[in-house]
Amino acid sequence: MCPANQPSRHHDVSEISVRVNYSETDQMGVVYHARYVVWLDMARTEHLRHAGMSYKEVEAMGVRLAVGELAIRYRQPARYDDQVRIRCWVRELGSRRILFGYAIENAETNLLLATATTAMFSINAEQRPTRLPDQVMGLLRVTPDPVRV
Amino acid sequence: MCPANQPSRHHDVSEISVRVNYSETDQMGVVYHARYVVWLDMARTEHLRHAGMSYKEVEAMGVRLAVGELAIRYRQPARYDDQVRIRCWVRELGSRRILFGYAIENAETNLLLATATTAMFSINAEQRPTRLPDQVMGLLRVTPDPVRV
Amino acid sequence: MCPANQPSRHHDVSEISVRVNYSETDQMGVVYHARYVVWLDMARTEHLRHAGMSYKEVEAMGVRLAVGELAIRYRQPARYDDQVRIRCWVRELGSRRILFGYAIENAETNLLLATATTAMFSINAEQRPTRLPDQVMGLLRVTPDPVRV
Amino acid sequence: MCPANQPSRHHDVSEISVRVNYSETDQMGVVYHARYVVWLDMARTEHLRHAGMSYKEVEAMGVRLAVGELAIRYRQPARYDDQVRIRCWVRELGSRRILFGYAIENAETNLLLATATTAMFSINAEQRPTRLPDQVMGLLRVTPDPVRV
Repeated sequence: MCPANQPSRHHDVSEISVRVNYSETDQMGVVYHARYVVWLDMARTEHLRHAGMSYKEVEAMGVRLAVGELAIRYRQPARYDDQVRIRCWVRELGSRRILFGYAIENAETNLLLATATTAMFSINAEQRPTRLPDQVMGLLRVTPDPVRV
Repeated sequence: MCPANQPSRHHDVSEISVRVNYSETDQMGVVYHARYVVWLDMARTEHLRHAGMSYKEVEAMGVRLAVGELAIRYRQPARYDDQVRIRCWVRELGSRRILFGYAIENAETNLLLATATTAMFSINAEQRPTRLPDQVMGLLRVTPDPVRV
Repeated sequence: MCPANQPSRHHDVSEISVRVNYSETDQMGVVYHARYVVWLDMARTEHLRHAGMSYKEVEAMGVRLAVGELAIRYRQPARYDDQVRIRCWVRELGSRRILFGYAIENAETNLLLATATTAMFSINAEQRPTRLPDQVMGLLRVTPDPVRV
Repeated sequence: MCPANQPSRHHDVSEISVRVNYSETDQMGVVYHARYVVWLDMARTEHLRHAGMSYKEVEAMGVRLAVGELAIRYRQPARYDDQVRIRCWVRELGSRRILFGYAIENAETNLLLATATTAMFSINAEQRPTRLPDQVMGLLRVTPDPVRV
């Protein structure tokens, strides 16, 4: 009846864009593969901020989200000066674990460059497992994969 | 009967050691997770050299080994000034693909910090799939996992 | 008489903004000092684009701008999640050398975090000195330092 | 008369060696210039350790050495798989400031690739200036430049 009130799937897929800098290239003439891992970090940081809480605020609550598992499938290379879009969403949400999904795309051609997942574990300042604060849980919503990961 | 002719498991697991530098830490007081990806690169580069051919020589044959898939499981943090050992071996070997396995360990305590795999694809200078040169294939040997990956 | 025709100092000082990512921090809880060097690269890349030619286009002309000298004075630390502004301008312009100046500032407080200079040398694909193309020279204008470097 | 009691210049110039990894190259086919800054950090860390105290121990005394000024002169490029030597020494030593000098050389050809200096300032955990501990001062010795910086 009222689509504006329906939760939108797209609303839950955040998006950032980065311009490839020279420092990110290697002598193969493409972006060095480790650099994608930092883009994932940038994307989920903005996902949290967009959802309503900066990761800085999460840390101020005494909680850290440590990467427990990381998987990336590289499909096409990103190149110098490309504008690259990283989309991010929540695939699974548990009391101590968030599984994020990512799609890395060329922002001009829309070509899919890579897909990735990271499992984040909630730990305290002593680096022991701890429950995700309710405020964090309440902000995040599990979203169907917008692309095959 | 003749142990010298028996393939040695240990012979096929290479090993490098790195000292954690300040640049590798983050404000959580541990090694930033993307840094492990570079350690894997250092480890497989030395694995190739130890097997008998530097990656520079592989490139000089017109072949590049591009990372197609990357997976890391982080178990315990590495910390500033730790001496870290990275062991590397070949898990699968195909005509166009090498699957490497890795164990990242604290070199003093032997604690397992992370395990990882990377699937490398053989491409030519135009970044198209190409067969691994026989000389490269002949140097590498598939080895049982020395730790559970 | 006609201020619109007067060259504007501010017009020749370009500006970019970056959000500090976790990967850029170290265990001292501040941005690791080597990271500023990449920010300088990002700033002069956008300075060129803003002036009318991307560095990618410069490379397509067979010219590379290699860093010959780098100097940074760190004044105040940048911290996680800070919005940082990097201003960039041309201090000296010769037939084979461009001296860029930079001011790194906290974008919210306007606090000056660092100042820097890089001397770029024009080289060809064989990494030998070569004259800057006239098209590049014509786009750049020497500007008085907006802050004391 | 008694050479063993004479201070040795060479004794006070420390030396480390690094193998250039793929991650350190850029699409110009040389080591990206920001990477040298990390090599300087590695070199002065080992200089301190060699002098008798690890930087980790310095931090445990509540003192941090923050980079206040950095200057690098790039002379020749380092390339993939090069073995690079970084020599480090103390140029000036004050109660709150250490000026380190560095020479970056190709370890095989002895070609000088770059020279550098970093001024380190002694700060406490609140990032305020503080005197260098006597134990640190006592370990370091000012040394004439082994190369022109």
